[in-house]
Amino acid sequence: MNATIFRSAINIAAISGIYLSVAMLVPAFIDVYYGHPDSEVFFLSAFFTGGLSLATAAATRAGPPPFNKRMGFLVVNLLWLSASIIGAIPLWLSSLDLTFAQAFFESVSAISTTGSTVITGLDHAPPGILMWRSLLHWLGGIGILALGLFIMPYLRVGGMSFFKLESSDTADKPFARIASYTRAFLAIYVAITLICAVVYAALGMNRFDALNHAMSTVATGGLSTHDSSFGYFKSLPLLWAATFFMTLSSLPFSVLILFVVRGRVDAWRDPQIRVFLGYLVLFAIAASVFQRLQNGVDFHEALAHSFFTVSSILSTTGFASDDYTQWGHFIVALAFVATFMGGCSGSTAGGLKAYRLIILFNFIRTGLYRLIYPNGIHAVRYGPMTVDADLQRNVFLFFLTYIAVAAFAAITLALLGYDVLTSISAAATSLSNVGPGVTQAIGPAGTFAGFHDAALYVLSFLMLLGRLEILTVLVILTPLFWKN
Amino acid sequence: MNATIFRSAINIAAISGIYLSVAMLVPAFIDVYYGHPDSEVFFLSAFFTGGLSLATAAATRAGPPPFNKRMGFLVVNLLWLSASIIGAIPLWLSSLDLTFAQAFFESVSAISTTGSTVITGLDHAPPGILMWRSLLHWLGGIGILALGLFIMPYLRVGGMSFFKLESSDTADKPFARIASYTRAFLAIYVAITLICAVVYAALGMNRFDALNHAMSTVATGGLSTHDSSFGYFKSLPLLWAATFFMTLSSLPFSVLILFVVRGRVDAWRDPQIRVFLGYLVLFAIAASVFQRLQNGVDFHEALAHSFFTVSSILSTTGFASDDYTQWGHFIVALAFVATFMGGCSGSTAGGLKAYRLIILFNFIRTGLYRLIYPNGIHAVRYGPMTVDADLQRNVFLFFLTYIAVAAFAAITLALLGYDVLTSISAAATSLSNVGPGVTQAIGPAGTFAGFHDAALYVLSFLMLLGRLEILTVLVILTPLFWKN
Repeated sequence: MNATIFRSAINIAAISGIYLSVAMLVPAFIDVYYGHPDSEVFFLSAFFTGGLSLATAAATRAGPPPFNKRMGFLVVNLLWLSASIIGAIPLWLSSLDLTFAQAFFESVSAISTTGSTVITGLDHAPPGILMWRSLLHWLGGIGILALGLFIMPYLRVGGMSFFKLESSDTADKPFARIASYTRAFLAIYVAITLICAVVYAALGMNRFDALNHAMSTVATGGLSTHDSSFGYFKSLPLLWAATFFMTLSSLPFSVLILFVVRGRVDAWRDPQIRVFLGYLVLFAIAASVFQRLQNGVDFHEALAHSFFTVSSILSTTGFASDDYTQWGHFIVALAFVATFMGGCSGSTAGGLKAYRLIILFNFIRTGLYRLIYPNGIHAVRYGPMTVDADLQRNVFLFFLTYIAVAAFAAITLALLGYDVLTSISAAATSLSNVGPGVTQAIGPAGTFAGFHDAALYVLSFLMLLGRLEILTVLVILTPLFWKN
Repeated sequence: MNATIFRSAINIAAISGIYLSVAMLVPAFIDVYYGHPDSEVFFLSAFFTGGLSLATAAATRAGPPPFNKRMGFLVVNLLWLSASIIGAIPLWLSSLDLTFAQAFFESVSAISTTGSTVITGLDHAPPGILMWRSLLHWLGGIGILALGLFIMPYLRVGGMSFFKLESSDTADKPFARIASYTRAFLAIYVAITLICAVVYAALGMNRFDALNHAMSTVATGGLSTHDSSFGYFKSLPLLWAATFFMTLSSLPFSVLILFVVRGRVDAWRDPQIRVFLGYLVLFAIAASVFQRLQNGVDFHEALAHSFFTVSSILSTTGFASDDYTQWGHFIVALAFVATFMGGCSGSTAGGLKAYRLIILFNFIRTGLYRLIYPNGIHAVRYGPMTVDADLQRNVFLFFLTYIAVAAFAAITLALLGYDVLTSISAAATSLSNVGPGVTQAIGPAGTFAGFHDAALYVLSFLMLLGRLEILTVLVILTPLFWKN
């Protein structure tokens, strides 16, 4: 690790800090519009963080940055960490009276599109704060999509290389292609947000709620402007609309891009889409049938709430329509397992993700066949393609570190005084960037407000770890990374 | 799958059924000695199962059995299933008034050396029944050691091939070697049992308790003759003695054999021993310090109970000295994670096992290095040896199916009406052959007596699955296995 790399990485983080400071003017003007005194906090924070970012950027200015893998890992970590700290400043200084740990947790939760909160009384919270959380979600969503499309395949983290843009798409004029893809993905992202907001408004939300929830939805974030989340609106059509947009947002963005930009209908054949929708429908129907038979819920109501809840968890959004921890053990168990599973690669969804689950499942199947016929040819497949040894290794590495980190974090949280299920559930929901857990305290009707600062830092770390596909963070914690 | 293989497999299972029926005479005479009327049940069961086994063996008699992998998988599954059914007969017919599901659960729990029980009031239970459970433990322990030493490496299940007897040990006169190893391992097994019984008796147990607990200890089983298990004796020296023998019994038997038969001191250098003892001591000390600082327990008492409890769980024995679910969340979390970890390969311990944990840990380490230096040479090591791709694959296959089966089973148990933590814990403790779970109902002070029959069958299946290293059972559930 040499000084040039470090300097360049800090420079990039500082430049993004300038943009984030400018973004603070949005909640500032929102508070001005609504006449809330917290507008001052946002202006002040923008001035302070903007100035500091500018000074840092100027001080670390240099020629074109070296581009290698270490630089890549360092930049990604620094970007998310510095954005989380900058995002926390106005929350910390606001009238909400949060500790810095709470503000940092809320900021990480927003930027990582997790959606856990330490704030109660959202219905009467300053509008600027609400908008700031939604904006951090939305920008965090853009960040993670860019990361998945352009950076992760290059860093070869967690088997994402499988989804790099095909060589025929990048071989000629690669930068022109990247620029056209970037424009396309931003256009699609903005378009989905706006359409979602219009639909939400048409189905009964006011404009402020519609915009906030749309930004939260497309980022598969989950922060809401109401304590009771989607339950506040008491509208089945809204639940179905949110189900549609949450699910859409957890499909691979690369597929949306290929479809929109190049009219590639065949892009929809990606096996992860079929499998993801498959287990989503399976879980939702199972939950509906259980709700109908066991709890006697009206079937349409059971369907709407079940599809909403399952897609909320699998898309790692974390909106709530009701306290599902009270729906019975079976649904809690489904929710618990779903917390680990996640959506598709190249989306804003977190978790293990469908393509890894497919590869792991096919690995088990071929492994069993190999035990019977040790000398046969047993390729692990992903749709029509063969998954090579290197990619398999990357997927295992992700799965293993995921389980190991969750176990270690659960023990740590238990040591800090939380019961075992809360500890495991909090660790899993943070690492998967879902949001709510499966115990009542931290469930869809609860918050992390009662957690003490040490636990909030642990969970913040887990959210960042999960958001950056774990290995990106673990790599820079190895001594080898820092050796020259 | 042809008829010859099936016939031969049934023949072998029937012959072992004859032996097991003869073994019923031990509890029969115990009951005669103590004047308990259940002796009749054992004589009757012995006569009935012995006769049926004899008839089946005669009807399926044939030439020397074909020896291939399918035959191996089929025999192993049939042996454990038929033994579990035969073992359940006297329990079912006894004065305990158990349903067949309960009797089957108890029998599987004993043979798989798990140690979960559905029986309450052990302190006043018929002595024959108590002896039968201990005997099933003890014979099950022999079965699993033989499986690990001689069959599993051949079936290449779960990476056990790493521990096959070195080629220099088997190349010349392989059968003579196997015979000498068999004699050695039986001699060592019997010797440890007797020494353990003598020590237990010297430290205050009566002869019946000492013998039963010794058989349970050496098999890392966990069934006791008292409802409060080791807590009944209120003796710290007994806890230390049990800690020693449980730990000894979860070390690799191959090492004990090489050491005793051939004087190979170097056999002790097996890295899994160091790592297993390492995490055992680490967990026990952490629990002791927590007990001292948080709960104010006397330090020697805390040490004795913590070492006993941790070694009881890690060795997958499952004896209890106290209700550790009441010791605080941190210790419950440690117990939960320890439930998955297990002892050494080639012992009677279950779980993931230390050598797999070593391989998985080194896989993570080299994986992180590979991300930084993609072109370097990154061999996964096990001590001085390199773990080849095939072995790595086998270890992953085991780990993956372990997690997948646990998740699937937990959902099933929740559907049957149990809360999520109980469901996960019951699934994990069954699959790892530990015994008690981490919730109060199924914890060290509880039993599975309240579980309904469907749940008991699920847990019985999990215990067999875990005992046979999961894949051995899953293989025969694939359609491919039954194709010609």
